[in-house]
Amino acid sequence: MKVLITGIDGYSGWPLALHLLNRGHEVSGIDNLVTRKRVKEVGSHSAMPLLTMEQRVKAVEKHLGKHLRFYRGDLCRWETVRDVVRKEKPDALVHLGEQRSAPYSMIDVHHAVETQVQNITGTLNILYALREESPQTHLVKMGTMGEYGTPNVDIAEGFFEIEYMGRKDRLPFPRQASSWYHWSKVFDTGDVMLANKLWGISATDVMQGVIYGTRSPDITRKEFLTRFDFDEVWGTALNRFCVQAVLGLPLTPYGKGHQKRGFIALEDSMQSLTLSVENPPAKGEYRVFNQFDESYSVTELAEMVVSAAREDQGIEAKIQNSYNPRVEAEEHYYKPHHENLLRMGYKASRTLRESLKEILADLVTYRSRLEARRQVVQPRMNFRSPDNRGSLHIPVGKN
Amino acid sequence: MKVLITGIDGYSGWPLALHLLNRGHEVSGIDNLVTRKRVKEVGSHSAMPLLTMEQRVKAVEKHLGKHLRFYRGDLCRWETVRDVVRKEKPDALVHLGEQRSAPYSMIDVHHAVETQVQNITGTLNILYALREESPQTHLVKMGTMGEYGTPNVDIAEGFFEIEYMGRKDRLPFPRQASSWYHWSKVFDTGDVMLANKLWGISATDVMQGVIYGTRSPDITRKEFLTRFDFDEVWGTALNRFCVQAVLGLPLTPYGKGHQKRGFIALEDSMQSLTLSVENPPAKGEYRVFNQFDESYSVTELAEMVVSAAREDQGIEAKIQNSYNPRVEAEEHYYKPHHENLLRMGYKASRTLRESLKEILADLVTYRSRLEARRQVVQPRMNFRSPDNRGSLHIPVGKN
Repeated sequence: MKVLITGIDGYSGWPLALHLLNRGHEVSGIDNLVTRKRVKEVGSHSAMPLLTMEQRVKAVEKHLGKHLRFYRGDLCRWETVRDVVRKEKPDALVHLGEQRSAPYSMIDVHHAVETQVQNITGTLNILYALREESPQTHLVKMGTMGEYGTPNVDIAEGFFEIEYMGRKDRLPFPRQASSWYHWSKVFDTGDVMLANKLWGISATDVMQGVIYGTRSPDITRKEFLTRFDFDEVWGTALNRFCVQAVLGLPLTPYGKGHQKRGFIALEDSMQSLTLSVENPPAKGEYRVFNQFDESYSVTELAEMVVSAAREDQGIEAKIQNSYNPRVEAEEHYYKPHHENLLRMGYKASRTLRESLKEILADLVTYRSRLEARRQVVQPRMNFRSPDNRGSLHIPVGKN
Repeated sequence: MKVLITGIDGYSGWPLALHLLNRGHEVSGIDNLVTRKRVKEVGSHSAMPLLTMEQRVKAVEKHLGKHLRFYRGDLCRWETVRDVVRKEKPDALVHLGEQRSAPYSMIDVHHAVETQVQNITGTLNILYALREESPQTHLVKMGTMGEYGTPNVDIAEGFFEIEYMGRKDRLPFPRQASSWYHWSKVFDTGDVMLANKLWGISATDVMQGVIYGTRSPDITRKEFLTRFDFDEVWGTALNRFCVQAVLGLPLTPYGKGHQKRGFIALEDSMQSLTLSVENPPAKGEYRVFNQFDESYSVTELAEMVVSAAREDQGIEAKIQNSYNPRVEAEEHYYKPHHENLLRMGYKASRTLRESLKEILADLVTYRSRLEARRQVVQPRMNFRSPDNRGSLHIPVGKN
């Protein structure tokens, strides 16, 4: 199949490209490389060294004997998106090309606007480009489990059947996001649903849990490494806990640390996306997959990192709960459904504990790169404050 | 009270300013006057002649002896919004300053992007400006009943109590919008909900039905007339039916014309907004009002216009159902709740039939202005097509 990946330079975009190439698909990708720039702006860098996209394309050529077409371009520019879709006319377009950090969106009004504007503009441009240039393409859009928030009922996969005042309907499961970023993903979901209704664009909408890991079976050599962020803005809680352990810093779960989230290994996220690509929905169908494996509280994560660090690396790490900068329930019910992927044959290939061994080993290997950015790991943000610039020293964006 | 109205130059912004002034409030407003420009772009104009904002301010001074502060400015410019909010520090900010046409948003990708980007940027700027400059201000935000779509169950006011898989919660009522514009209003709702959670901004979120009418008791003279659009892009179905009747054109309900919507008189919309302003929510409260009075199908509307035209003006009008350019259910259940305003003392002051008498009289008075724009009334759009430029001859916007 022909697959076009937006955001191919990103944490999951790059290993997805490798995985699809290894499975014999024809892969192209587009990226504006802005995540590299933004991570630099907060004074950080990826834990492991990264090749440039040009070097990556060459490495793929050399080591896999495959050709990867890369377009450097901005999804917010209509002509760019239209031209790439026109040229590629892919069987599937996997849309990963978005600003993906909640803390980044909460820095100040400019970062809030930038996040929402760029994410919805990119998605609208893609939807129109598919309609005009390649209406048969299956759109696989990356959403987030964070769209649903933490309701006191089970979380359905996209839609739920309910009875209300004596009547029944199948309705979109209510969204309750807790950052401007998470709302931007809800907005995308709305726009994809409408494009599906208007024009019959087939779509798989993936509500993705937090991805973890430095490796997938396709990352067989140093040249194939993907990015791994560990600063407060771009790194996930788990990433930061691992780096804190390796650097001898206290692990800092926010608040009580009882807030639960769904998690999935990098390798299994690739498996899931590939299942979606290789098993497209019916023509005109819109389907939603909740894509995660295990649910953990933040404290459970921290505790697992502490034991893995001790057992695998002989490192003694400590947990020190910190002020919660987020506005979120710290004690809540959490039972999201995730049957759709299982029905398609998805099987988790590893557990978090297994991945931690690899992550810590990789981080220990590149400890000096972490030491050099020691100052960006510990928490300083506060979502309740309208302006986080002061503490973060991030340049002010422009509307 | 001090009230700041965004979109004060608009159809409902202007009569709201008059109404609040007449009730003794201190009123200021901001507008970038873009609706005037956009209506011109589709080759149309308001049915009745309009004063400029400068002339309006002078007319208010002269005839009401009141001072109205007007700021010409764009809500998408952060510094503008911050400065106006800093200067005014209003008790209530009524946010009406948005692109408010579904057909406009459906013209092509540029108009889709423009609508969503401008609407969410303006709202985010207002939310941050309130947080930074005037956190005690009560935000009254204009949403639309169209956010809910037409589910097969009753439509609650913003939130509903449900039981799902044996557990209960109070959740946001699911949104199912049917145009990029309507989704932009859903997006605003999400952002206001989050700002309320993050910063405790008090908000009244108004899910407004279709407003009708050329008059409110505050429009006592020609100088106080508000705009009344009748072209395919900017006019509501009812407005267009009235103008079609006056011009001797067939009335053109889309499709079967059984699709139902909620309606409210201009005067009663002013009454509702004023009730919200004068009875603010508790500090930190977020409340939702479904603001409409009567529900009619499009065919019922057309039939009422036909009889009003005959009885009041001796005009024989005909109905000619046209192709439905929208993607919407034409046969559906429709029972939205609207008790919250009634509980606050809201009473409908007039019916649609009574308003039709006035509307038709005003249109007959200005018939020559309608004749001059005869070509923009009849339907030419198609929401299913990715590009409506061809038929509409609208200049392409820029991302």
